[in-house]
Parts: sequence; C-alpha cells; structure tokens
Amino acid sequence: MSFEKFKELVGDLNDLHQAQSLAQWDMQTQMPEKGSGPRGKQLVTLGKMAHELLTSGQMREYMDSLRSPAGQQSLSEADRALIREMADKFDKATKLPTELVKRYDEAQARGFNIWIRARKANDFESFKGIMQELVDISRERAEALGYEKDPYDALMDGYEKGATVDQVDPLFDGLKDELITLVKAIKDSGRKPDEKLFKYTYPEEAQLAFSREILDAMGYDFSRGRLDKSAHPFTTELGGCMDVRITVRSQSNNPLECISTALHEGGHALYEQGISEEYLGTPLGSGTTLGIHESQSRLWENNVGRSLPFWQHFFPVMKRHFPDQLEEYDVESFYHVMNKVQPSLIRTEADEVTYNLHIMLRYEMEKDLINNRLQVADVPKVWNAKLQEYLGITPDSDANGCMQDVHWAEGYFGYFPTYALGNLYAAQFYRTAKTKIPNLEQKIAQGNLTDLHNWLRENIYKHGKTKTATQLAEEITGEPLNPQYFVDYLWEKYGDIYSIKR
Amino acid sequence: MSFEKFKELVGDLNDLHQAQSLAQWDMQTQMPEKGSGPRGKQLVTLGKMAHELLTSGQMREYMDSLRSPAGQQSLSEADRALIREMADKFDKATKLPTELVKRYDEAQARGFNIWIRARKANDFESFKGIMQELVDISRERAEALGYEKDPYDALMDGYEKGATVDQVDPLFDGLKDELITLVKAIKDSGRKPDEKLFKYTYPEEAQLAFSREILDAMGYDFSRGRLDKSAHPFTTELGGCMDVRITVRSQSNNPLECISTALHEGGHALYEQGISEEYLGTPLGSGTTLGIHESQSRLWENNVGRSLPFWQHFFPVMKRHFPDQLEEYDVESFYHVMNKVQPSLIRTEADEVTYNLHIMLRYEMEKDLINNRLQVADVPKVWNAKLQEYLGITPDSDANGCMQDVHWAEGYFGYFPTYALGNLYAAQFYRTAKTKIPNLEQKIAQGNLTDLHNWLRENIYKHGKTKTATQLAEEITGEPLNPQYFVDYLWEKYGDIYSIKR
Repeated sequence: MSFEKFKELVGDLNDLHQAQSLAQWDMQTQMPEKGSGPRGKQLVTLGKMAHELLTSGQMREYMDSLRSPAGQQSLSEADRALIREMADKFDKATKLPTELVKRYDEAQARGFNIWIRARKANDFESFKGIMQELVDISRERAEALGYEKDPYDALMDGYEKGATVDQVDPLFDGLKDELITLVKAIKDSGRKPDEKLFKYTYPEEAQLAFSREILDAMGYDFSRGRLDKSAHPFTTELGGCMDVRITVRSQSNNPLECISTALHEGGHALYEQGISEEYLGTPLGSGTTLGIHESQSRLWENNVGRSLPFWQHFFPVMKRHFPDQLEEYDVESFYHVMNKVQPSLIRTEADEVTYNLHIMLRYEMEKDLINNRLQVADVPKVWNAKLQEYLGITPDSDANGCMQDVHWAEGYFGYFPTYALGNLYAAQFYRTAKTKIPNLEQKIAQGNLTDLHNWLRENIYKHGKTKTATQLAEEITGEPLNPQYFVDYLWEKYGDIYSIKR
Repeated sequence: MSFEKFKELVGDLNDLHQAQSLAQWDMQTQMPEKGSGPRGKQLVTLGKMAHELLTSGQMREYMDSLRSPAGQQSLSEADRALIREMADKFDKATKLPTELVKRYDEAQARGFNIWIRARKANDFESFKGIMQELVDISRERAEALGYEKDPYDALMDGYEKGATVDQVDPLFDGLKDELITLVKAIKDSGRKPDEKLFKYTYPEEAQLAFSREILDAMGYDFSRGRLDKSAHPFTTELGGCMDVRITVRSQSNNPLECISTALHEGGHALYEQGISEEYLGTPLGSGTTLGIHESQSRLWENNVGRSLPFWQHFFPVMKRHFPDQLEEYDVESFYHVMNKVQPSLIRTEADEVTYNLHIMLRYEMEKDLINNRLQVADVPKVWNAKLQEYLGITPDSDANGCMQDVHWAEGYFGYFPTYALGNLYAAQFYRTAKTKIPNLEQKIAQGNLTDLHNWLRENIYKHGKTKTATQLAEEITGEPLNPQYFVDYLWEKYGDIYSIKR
C-alpha cells in the first residue's frame, strides 16, 4: 500500500472540493442570474462525486491499512495528521447511511426555500414543520455519528472538532452573567456616541479603495487572492494558500460595514494564505476548526480593527477618502461611534459586547431541541423570553427573531457556538500577542501590522490542520481556552469608552 | 436498461465538463496570478474524472444496448441524436489507448511551454523536435481512430464531424486562385483608406460601453451571460444556454479590435444562447461543429459587422462615444478603413479577403505533415515559399511565420480548416438570409438586428447538435457547402470599395 498513491487520491478529492468552491464563489460574485439552475445541478454532481471518492473501496483500503500503528511507521508528523484528518472525514461520511444523507440534503434544500418565504412573510407557522424535520434528522445524524454523553456533541464535532457540551457549558455559563452585567452598566452610563456619521453618503468605490488599503497593510496578498462584492461576505480558498478570495458588502450610509467585513474576511484570508505550502492540495492546508478560523477574523475585525491604536493610524487615511463626511469627527469620537454598545435584535449587526449573548441563546436552544427538551413549536416563545432576559429587548417579529439566521433552515445545528468560541480564542491569543510582541500597540498606531501578522503566521496560520484547537491554545497561550481574557478585554476597553468601573 | 439512467450519466458528465469550463474561464478572467499551479492540477483531475466517466463500464453497457436499432425503438429523434453523439465521444475515447492519451497530453503541455520560449527567441530549431513528436503522435492517433482514405480525415473529424480531405480539397482548390486574383486586383487598384483613426486614444471604458450597446442590439442576453476582458477573446458556456460568457480584448489606439471581438464572440454566444432549452445538460445543447460555430461568429463579425448598412446605424452611435477621435470621419471613410485589405503576416490580424489564404497554407502543410510528405525540419522553408506565392510577402522571422499560432504547439492538427469552412458557411447562410428576410439590409441600417437573430435562431441555433453541418447547409440553403457564395460576396463588397471589376 503506497502512501504516495493515498496522497494522490486525497489530492483528487481536494481538487473536486475546490471545483465546488469555485462554482459557489462564482455563483455569488459573477454568475448571470439565469445560470442558477444548471449551477445547482453542477454542485450536486460535484458533491456526489466527492462523496463517492471519499467513501470508495480504495479509500477504505487505505484507511484500513494506514490508521493502524503499523501503517504509520516511518511517517512524518504531518503525514500522520493527514491520516487522522482523512480518517475523521471517512468515518463521518461512512457512518451516515446514504438514505439519511439524501434525506438531509433534500430537507436542507427545502428548508432554505421555505425559510426565504416564511421570513419574508413573518410566518413561523409555515416554517416550523420543516424545522422540526431538520431537528429530527439532526438527532438521527447524531445517533449515526455517535457520541459519549450528549447527542449535541456529535453535531458540534462536525464544525469544531472535539468540542463537547461538557467543555462548552462551563465556558459560557460564567460568561453570560458577566456580559449581562456589563451590558447593563453600559446602558446605565447614559453615554451615547455622536452618530451624524450615518447621515452622509459614502461612494462605494471609495469604500472599496479604503478597504484595499487596510487589506494591503494587513498583509493580504492580492497576487494570491482578490476582493469582490457579494450579498453575504465570505472567504474561500480555491487553490490552497495560492488562491484565497474574499468578498465584502457595503452600505451607502454606513462606511463601517465595508471596513469591518474587509477586516473580518481579511482575517480569515490571512489564515488561509499563511498556511505552509507543504500542505497544499491536502485537507491539512486549511484552518483547523471553525472556532479558530473565527478567532482570526474576529481578532482582526475587533481586537485590532476596533481599537484606538488602529484608528490613530487609519482615521487620517480614511479622512482622505471621505473628507466632507468625516469633517466633524476626530479619532476619539469616531472610535466611540464604531464601538457603540446597544442591545439589538439582529446577531450579525450586534456589537462585541452583546454578540456572544445572541450565540448563547441559540446554543442553549439547540441543545434543548436536539435533546427533545424543547419543541419547535415553542421556539418563538422561548427565543423572545431569553432575549428579554439577556438583552432586555423583545423582537418586533419572528422574522427579526428566531427566523433571522439561515442556520436552522439548513439544519446546521452545532454551528453557532463556534462564533462565540472564536471571540474567546481571539481575546486569549491577542493578549498573548501583546506580551510577546514588544510595543505591539504602538506599532499598530504607526500603521505597522506586519509584526502581528508574522507572529500569527508563525504561531497559528502555518500549521493548518496539523494542530487541533486545544493544542494551539495550550502551546501559544500556555492554557486551555479561558473566557476570562475576553471579559477582561471587554471591561478594559468599554470601561474606558463608557467611563464605567467593574 | 433505462434511458433515463443513461441521461443521468450523460448529465453528470456534462456537469463535469462545465466545471472544467468554469475553471478555465476563471483562470483567464479572474484568477490571481499565483493560483495557476493548483488550478492546473484541478483541471487535470476534472479531465481525468470526465474521461473515467465517459469510458466507464456503465457507459459501455448503455452504448452496447442503446446503439442497436432495438435499443432505439420508441425513442424521439432528439434522443437518437443524443445516442449518436455519445457514441461518437465514447468511440473516440475508447479507441485511443490510455498510454497514447497520456503521451499526447504530456507532449501537448511540453509543446506549449517550448513554443512560448521558442517563439519569443525566434528559435525554430528548439521547437522542431517537439513539433515532430506531436506530428508523429497525431499520426498514431489517426491510426487508432481509424479513417477510410486519408489519416488527416481522422484528425479533422475531431473538430468538424464528417469532414474529409476528399470533401475539403475541391472547396479550397478553386477558392485559392480566386482569392489570389482578388488580392492582386485590390493591390493594383492603388486605393488606400485614411488611417488617421489609429493615431488617437480610445479609453477602454468607452470601448466596452460601445461593445455592450452592439451586443444588446444583437440580442445577446446579459441575464444569461456576461462580458469580461481576457488576453485571448473566447466564448464559453458554463450552464448550457443559461450561462454563456464572452470575453473581449481592447487596444488603446485601435477601437476596431474591441468591436470586432465583441461581434465575433457575440456571434458564438448567440448560437449557444439560442439552443433549445430541451437539450440543456446534454452534449446536444452545444453548437454542432467548429465550422458551423465559426460561421456564426464570422457572420456577425464580417457579413454584418463590417457591412455598410450596419455602420449606417452604428457609426453615429460610435461617434457619441468618441466624438473627438472620429471627428474627421464619415461613415464611408470609416467603412473603408475597417475593410482595408492588405497581405500581412499574422493570421489573426488578417482581413476577410486574405484570411482564408492563411488557412489554406496551413491546411496543405498539415496534410503533408501527417502523410509524411513533409518533414518538420522543412516547415519554415515551405511556409515562407507558400506565403510568398499566395500573398506576395515573406515573414521577417519564424516567430511571425510558422511559429505564430499555438495550434501546432498543442498538436491540434485538423483544427485550422474549420476557420475557413466557417467563412464559407457564413457567406452561404447570409446570402440565404437576405433572400428570406424582406429588406434585411434596410433593417440593419435602422439598427434592427432582431429579424436576423430570430431567423438564425430558428434555422441554426435552436437545433444544437441534433443536426449535422451538412444537414444544416442543405436544409437552409438547399445545397451543400459551395465556396462560390463567399467569392461572390467578396467581389461584390470589395469591388465597390476598391473600384475594381472581376
């Protein structure tokens, strides 16, 4: 059994996945509107072929022989990581009966279409049937995939390798109370930023030009990527670290949208571009978990991109792009408006402080749904009660409440917690970076983002999927994920902005 | 054996081809420069999978059962055409030994790379080895594919189904003398157009905007396509008639380049967009042969797009885009400069009159190479002698002579004649269109291109690959391909422009 032949098969599978990613990128950025029918079919076919390759008899033979200790003798650490990664994919793909995979695919597609209409019509009644179906199928998937204690673990594992309810619950529990306290303190401070910024118009070309300047400074390599617009911003790799593309979204009256999506997607992209070339063409050449990936996007978007030092350099640059619109702002007032904290209905628009509460609400409900402790019919009621408890507000509609996100419509239960984990990892990594890189914040205030980029590449990016999330946290910061760093970061920053004390 | 299952397999294969086409389109229009390595590998993998699907045991079973008369009972004409088409692909793919396919692929890739360097260095010596290899492999391919009289027939059949030396020789033979006579008469007329046009600069944005106006008028559907720039203009379908994209090239001092590539690729695209939706997802949903495809691009580029009626409408439009640059031109002087006839070295820059002589030269040499009547070492000598005989000029270098085109460097012997066949078909179809559509030229002079588009769609486009080239010629024009219509068209047009008589 030749390891080289195994790598060839892995390479072919990787090529198929990248062909899928290209078809999706094109669909969201370039495709003419009427191309969607044939494109949908092409995506199904590519998915089917990738599945056939992954579960082929040949792959099974490689798996049988390579995952035994004898099969791994004389292999490098990276090669063993590749076997571990492929075994995980192979097991997940083969544990699920074909019939269940089909039923899930079909329900996902149906769920998405029903959700589009139901959200538009604010009609949860028409959505709850398919949502219940997706919950039931997800439970079946969990049973097929297997778990030790909680069926929800099996689902989370698909997005955050190794994450369990036992691990996540204690992280979130203490954090929740801390956040609720902080949100209240900010509200009680009575301070409000000057928001006249949003009364002006910001030409899209200038927004994109400024975003490019930021991406350049971050070290995003345009010879290995490109920037486009799309309705929902995303990052995708179409050729390992050699072709990592990002998209952004802009709003004519809110220049912060384009900037923060550029920083966010730019962070994802730096990670993918920074992975060692030696993993090119294999699944190792990709970020290790969604939580770690999100930590890199959020680190650049929030810890760096919403910091005072960053804007000490970039606010004057931004003023050159928008001299009239920003005439009455100085860096401090701009820093305050871009860090405004206010409980709001929509997760994707939430500030750093309230964001994780949106996630916890979803996480708690998902666990209860999968464990049959919560019925889909009760979702709106529970959603609204929790939102009132955590943020003191109630949705004006289910469309802006429990139907706002696409995840449940596509059956992605277990995905949401990775967003919160990303925020926690980001705070912990960034705190370490500040201790390891001399004068990091002064450097950033001078527009030097290179030292931070290099440190992240050396410590996180370059390893790709060869290290797990837990390994990275322990090796880089000396301890497992600890939410206290996130809480400290928030208090330090927002204590200052809102003149409040812990 | 279910015909529906067969169609599913055909659909999967089609999806794979479209994924390849997307990867190629992206490579030439969007991909960042460093993405080329992984992209090359993805293309190889997709090609390998398509080949495996086409030559699979399942496909063989379908072929065995479906191509017998019994297998075709109760099938529609379109379904029988699909079987015929798939059988042709299957036979071509299975007749070629895997070893030969690999050797050809490898030599093509090597040929391309050597050619890039050799052309740049004007060094035929370094190119002739790989060219001889490609000639030898092509001969082997012809033997494997099989033929009745001439091995070159087997190669042409790959591009122009059914074309043979016995059929093409008589078409070209008479034509050659006619063209040489016409070129000489034009030269002797002493008339020369006013070329100050080329002294000005034409902003790219305005060139593209004007090209879009022309494409709109032609009836190119932008909701099922898009226009981009690329170094080498091309048309590609990425979702049957639902996603047909074109690219153009522009030159800052020559506005004719962008216009003629838009008309040319627009013609290819109207064909693909006009194919009946019922053939979507099958190889029937594509143009029937390269010759017929080229007839549609050339019809729009030359017969329409270089005609006086066309510019009677579009010259004033163009003047709005370029008022200063075209100030001293009127439609007649513009019509003359865009129809300037002059023997020149480079095929792709040749005018309508000299173009086919460039093709005949290549056709004659290819036949001799494949039949071992000409050795590769003698190619430059023979090239130069023929060019002198046909056009009265001699290349300043092999780079601008026998090494100018990529075709021989990639082993595409048999491809060139389709360009000339396209010109001949175009003249014959357009002559019929003029007799069938009342006042066609007056309509065009009013900017109405719709009647022509509709006629072409009804007679040519919609059939896709269900009709052969010969069938189309006979059904539409009442006779097989006849080069006399092309000669008549040229004399009528250029007799007028250059005040010469036959």
